[in-house]
Amino acid sequence: MDDDLMAAQTRLGHMERALEEARAAGERGEVPVGAVLVAPSGSIVATAGNRTREQSDPSAHAEMLVIRAAAAELGSERLIDHDLYVTLEPCPMCAAVISFARIRRLYYGASDPKSGGVEHGPRIFSQTTCHHRPDLYPGLGEVEAATLLREFFATRRLD
Amino acid sequence: MDDDLMAAQTRLGHMERALEEARAAGERGEVPVGAVLVAPSGSIVATAGNRTREQSDPSAHAEMLVIRAAAAELGSERLIDHDLYVTLEPCPMCAAVISFARIRRLYYGASDPKSGGVEHGPRIFSQTTCHHRPDLYPGLGEVEAATLLREFFATRRLD
Repeated sequence: MDDDLMAAQTRLGHMERALEEARAAGERGEVPVGAVLVAPSGSIVATAGNRTREQSDPSAHAEMLVIRAAAAELGSERLIDHDLYVTLEPCPMCAAVISFARIRRLYYGASDPKSGGVEHGPRIFSQTTCHHRPDLYPGLGEVEAATLLREFFATRRLD
Repeated sequence: MDDDLMAAQTRLGHMERALEEARAAGERGEVPVGAVLVAPSGSIVATAGNRTREQSDPSAHAEMLVIRAAAAELGSERLIDHDLYVTLEPCPMCAAVISFARIRRLYYGASDPKSGGVEHGPRIFSQTTCHHRPDLYPGLGEVEAATLLREFFATRRLD
């Protein structure tokens, strides 16, 4: 197997892990979004799903939780050369903290026209006041991530 | 003393408290920004200054810290009818969490053309994808807040 194919399989594996976190979040009654943070060595250093309800914390989105956990572990506000995998386009809050943490690459699944902050709304990384932009890789695991969210919100509307 | 004057003095008192938190943050080597969160009853429920360095947390801005503390205390992601006082125009991350927390009124001191997210850059509350906008009261304690920041960064450039 060539290197490109192996790297692609690794990325898919990280997104599959993020999707598992999203499913677990949905089962807890949280919006089903999951994230995985990968160190420069290639190892996963943090995984999380949304926990805003459980933690009574409006900032406890999956991306925020993995960044906080990894920064605390590393003892640095900056996660140089770390890559983030998240099942949904980050919101403006998470896009901003991704920039503050100096995340290198951002892989995300489904777009979020309603609340996203990367390719929608305030487009955080396109602002001249944004001081660090990760490389963006949208669409990885998009179908699975979008299906999870659609099913979650369909169920809630029937409650 | 009439009611309007008393209310104005109360607001100034809250901003003075936020400025004390900003000064304390500067003394810890953090960017000198402070925040105070006020419950619907009028009592202060949380105060904080920036702690991104101390906590190795890129999200540990003053506004984020008071919102997290108050939400945890209240057991709710939403801080209905709560008012936030902060010495500097919030960044996009904090503006977004202010919206998520449903903060009623946002009082802030100095504008931040470089990194602000309210009247600069992504102008979070002006986006059609922003689902809650606080009432905005800029300029309260502006001179003191701007002086603190200017002195802090002047000192750092001399280091």
